[in-house]
Order: sequence, then structure tokens, then C-alpha cells
Amino acid sequence: MKIALAGIGKIALDQHVPALAASPDWTLAATLSRHGRVEGVPAFADIDAMLAAHPDIGAVSLCLPPVPRFDAAQAVLRAGRHLMLEKPPGATLAEVHALQAMAADAGVTIFATWHSRMALGVAAARDWLAGRRVTGGRITWREDVRHWHPGQDWIFEAGGMGVFDPGINALSILTHILPTPARLTAAELDIPANRQAPIAARLDFAGGITADLDFRQQGPQTWDIALETDGGRLALSQGGNLLEIDDRPVQGRGGIAGEYPALYARMADLVARGASDVDLAPMVLVADAFTLGRRATVASFDF
Amino acid sequence: MKIALAGIGKIALDQHVPALAASPDWTLAATLSRHGRVEGVPAFADIDAMLAAHPDIGAVSLCLPPVPRFDAAQAVLRAGRHLMLEKPPGATLAEVHALQAMAADAGVTIFATWHSRMALGVAAARDWLAGRRVTGGRITWREDVRHWHPGQDWIFEAGGMGVFDPGINALSILTHILPTPARLTAAELDIPANRQAPIAARLDFAGGITADLDFRQQGPQTWDIALETDGGRLALSQGGNLLEIDDRPVQGRGGIAGEYPALYARMADLVARGASDVDLAPMVLVADAFTLGRRATVASFDF
Repeated sequence: MKIALAGIGKIALDQHVPALAASPDWTLAATLSRHGRVEGVPAFADIDAMLAAHPDIGAVSLCLPPVPRFDAAQAVLRAGRHLMLEKPPGATLAEVHALQAMAADAGVTIFATWHSRMALGVAAARDWLAGRRVTGGRITWREDVRHWHPGQDWIFEAGGMGVFDPGINALSILTHILPTPARLTAAELDIPANRQAPIAARLDFAGGITADLDFRQQGPQTWDIALETDGGRLALSQGGNLLEIDDRPVQGRGGIAGEYPALYARMADLVARGASDVDLAPMVLVADAFTLGRRATVASFDF
Repeated sequence: MKIALAGIGKIALDQHVPALAASPDWTLAATLSRHGRVEGVPAFADIDAMLAAHPDIGAVSLCLPPVPRFDAAQAVLRAGRHLMLEKPPGATLAEVHALQAMAADAGVTIFATWHSRMALGVAAARDWLAGRRVTGGRITWREDVRHWHPGQDWIFEAGGMGVFDPGINALSILTHILPTPARLTAAELDIPANRQAPIAARLDFAGGITADLDFRQQGPQTWDIALETDGGRLALSQGGNLLEIDDRPVQGRGGIAGEYPALYARMADLVARGASDVDLAPMVLVADAFTLGRRATVASFDF
């Protein structure tokens, strides 16, 4: 099936393009971007022009930043094409609710992806936690924004989510593996004096789970989730790719290697079954953190 | 049926107690509060003690501020009693989702009330808008926080919602009467230098609807919603109680006079039918405003 990719930036070139090149299900047939392009693939700057020129493109995958994403998503659904959304699926909850309703009306698939849920240890972690009682835990999600988002000022603008852009990956894993829903009880947000979005955050969840999110990590990067239960200790590290139970490594479930190849395989399966997949639990926790969070002003940040 | 009232502050004494006194459905059988009490009604400071002492109390109505409300709500549902929540129904979306799940498991009613939806002109406004296309509009919701929330510092703390405490009343009407879902596209939040929550906000919604919320209004108070449509102009004023179409007053639907008497009548009906009513659309818009909103620091505020 032919697919178009919109928003040809770092994540598209690093992950989406290679995943599509290796996919048995999809052929990248067009791109949409203001500046970026992919060698050998027709490039467009206007989404309606792209959709009109390529009626054979059945699906569009959006990697635009969250704020400009809605208009493109709406154009895709209005044209009756299937829609795949990079995380987070939108800038607001209400707009994703609107997209869900539009996709249902149009009879097409909408897939709000959470790539970290496809990391190698996550499915086995979920299986192991089922039926166990979580008694506490700690998320440590610390990375260097200058490395992963060089010069991307939008990430610190209002609606850009700041450190929750990576932090929502941790929350997407947490909400997927916990046997009961996560509930935020307190949050502290550190906002650089010259920015709108947080550069660090500390979150408290019911049941003794805490999260330490930081965008200023230099040297080794840390993407760890550790949970204590009534039946042992679970540790996911390397962004969900390494699972240890009571300090012993556990083999993941296998399946497709690579988060983005797994996402595109799932998209193909959803389209084939006429199904959709939109789980907003990670985004609800972020909205709750912005609503409930106590803000502190910290040192200005420049790339 | 016997009911208990928790959180005996200004809104409880101004609205809930008189509404219950006049209700043909309910008898106020106990109160829960740190300091407040109601003449002639048994008063408790501990919710579990109250529930244990009064197994005949079938429902509890919570008027506590949003942050401490969850623990009380959970205690009510754990005791298998019906639950009625003053707006907003919680400090976070995830906690209300959790309460919904708990109520469903316990087989009891949960009613997240929006008192402004019971204002006299709202049902007729909704009927008139059905089938019309809204082409623009303006919400003006300006009141004096010193008058309505004297000394209530919690309202400006993190999670207290600030000007969204009254503003969510406007949003509860808007989301109830609009023929299509409201979607926030931009927000500006004014935060006093010595506070955490906004004292004023300007919101933009898709379709040309704007909102001007302000907690610093002195003199006459303004609670107006004006909508332009392809079939005329609608104006709701006095907090939804006066409806005008093309500048001519329209009779409301009648029914029960008074927002709180109407809420308690609806609660009795929900319990009788074994039903629940939790519409989070107004709260989603507030969470979206906190997530997407651009913040500016304004003059300190003291009561």
C-alpha cells in the first residue's frame, strides 16, 4: 500500500524513512515538508495538492510538531485516507477527540502511535506485571535536548510540551504495563526564564511511583523505569528495550525488531482489519501535569 | 433518601443546603467539614467515621476544593454510596476516570455536576442551535474573585484552576449547547507574580469563538455567551439564565427553578434509574488551555 510521510525532519529521516524502506507492507510514495525531502520520492509543500495528485496513496503518516499537525490530519481524513500520528497525537486532547470522530465518520483507520510501547522489553513487562500489585517505583528519563532536538525551538514554545516530549514516552510505557491506571497526584515543572515549556519535571503518582524527567542530561542518557511489586522487582532500561526481573535479564517477546518497523506493521494490520487505535492515557497524564503542576522559573536555556 | 454533604463552605451554605432543604427527594442527614456545620445536622470531621455511623445515608455530595476531593470521593465509593461532585469533578482528568471506573465496579451512581448547564436559558439555547452552523462567538466571563471567593487562597494554588473555576461554568454551557465539539486552538494565561493559577485568560476556539475570562472585575459582573450562526444571533446572559435570539428575549424551557435544585432532582433521577452522568468536555478544555496556553506574569494579587 502506498503511504505519504509529512514533516521531513530528524525523526522522519532517522526512523520513519528507514522503517518504510524495510517494510513489506508499505511504499513511500510522496513526502510533504516545507524544506525536507527524501531522495527519489515526489515532494510536496501543500497537503491538499499532494492528496489530489496521488489518489493511490491510501495512508498518510504525520511527523509534524503537535501544534501544526491538526490541520494536516484533518485534510488527510477529509480526503478519506488512513491516518498515522507520531506521538504526541496532537497539541490538545479535544483535537484528538475530534480526529477520532472524523475518522469514524469517514470509515478510515486512525492510529495514534507510541513508539516506546514497541521497545523490546515492554510486552514481557506488561505480561509479568499482570496480576501483581505495584507498591512503588521510579521513572528516570533524562536526555540531552541539544542532541535529540538540535535547534528545535518549537519544543519549548507553548504547546511544544518541553521535557514531556521525551517524558511522554516513559508515560506511554507506564500506562501500558501497569495493571491499574496511573493517577497523577502532584507535579513540579521547571520552566526556563526565556521559555514557555518545562525543561525538567518531577511527578508523583498514586501508589508511590515518582518520575524524574530532565532535558539537560549530558553524558550517558537515562531512560529507566523501575517498579517494586508484591512479587519482585521489575527494571526496564534503555527506553524499554532491556527488561530485568530481580536483577536478572529477561528475554523480550521477540517479534519485529525496531520500534518504528513494529509501528508500521501494526498500522498495516489496523488498516487490514478496518480498526483504529487511539489511547490517550499518556497525553491525559501530561495534561494533568500541566493543570496540577506547580511551576518554578529556572535558568534561561539556549540551544 | 438520606444524603450527606461534605465541604461546608460558601457554596455549600449558599446553594446546596437550601436546595436540599427544599428538595422532595433528599434529606440532609450528616455533614463533613473541618470547620463548617449546619444547624441541627450531625457533623463529622472524618468521612469514614461518618459513613460507618450512618449506613442509612445512600449518597454523598462533595463540595470540597478539587485537590482534596479525590480521597473523599474514593471513600464514598468504597462504602458503596452514590456520589455527586461539585464542579470541577476533580483536580485531574485521570482521577475522574478512576472514579468512573470505581463507581461502575461498585454499581453506584456518579454524577459530575455542571450547575450552569441548569441555568434557565441553556436548554432552549441548545435546542435552537441544533442544526444551525455557528460562524463565530464571544464568551465574556468576568467576576470579582474577592466577592465570590473571599480569602480562598486554594483557588490560586497549583491545581486550584484560578479564573477557570468560574470560567469552566462558561465552558460547561458552551460544550452543552454547541452542535459540534469545541476545540481550543490557542490560549493566553495571566498568572499573578505571587500565585500559581491564572487570574485572567483569553481563549481561541476553532470556528471563530473567543473567550475573555477575568477574575478582577469590579462593579457589575458579566457572564455572557454570544454566538453568531447562519440562522441568527444567540445571546445568553446572566450566567445562562437569560436567552435572547436576534435581540428578542426567549422563554426558557421551564422546569425546576434554580440550578442546584435542578441538580439534586437530576441526581435523584440518576439514582432511581441506576445511571451515571460524567461529561468531562469542560474539564478537557481547561486541561488543554493549561497544556497549550502561553503564560504571562502579571501584577501580584492579594485578597
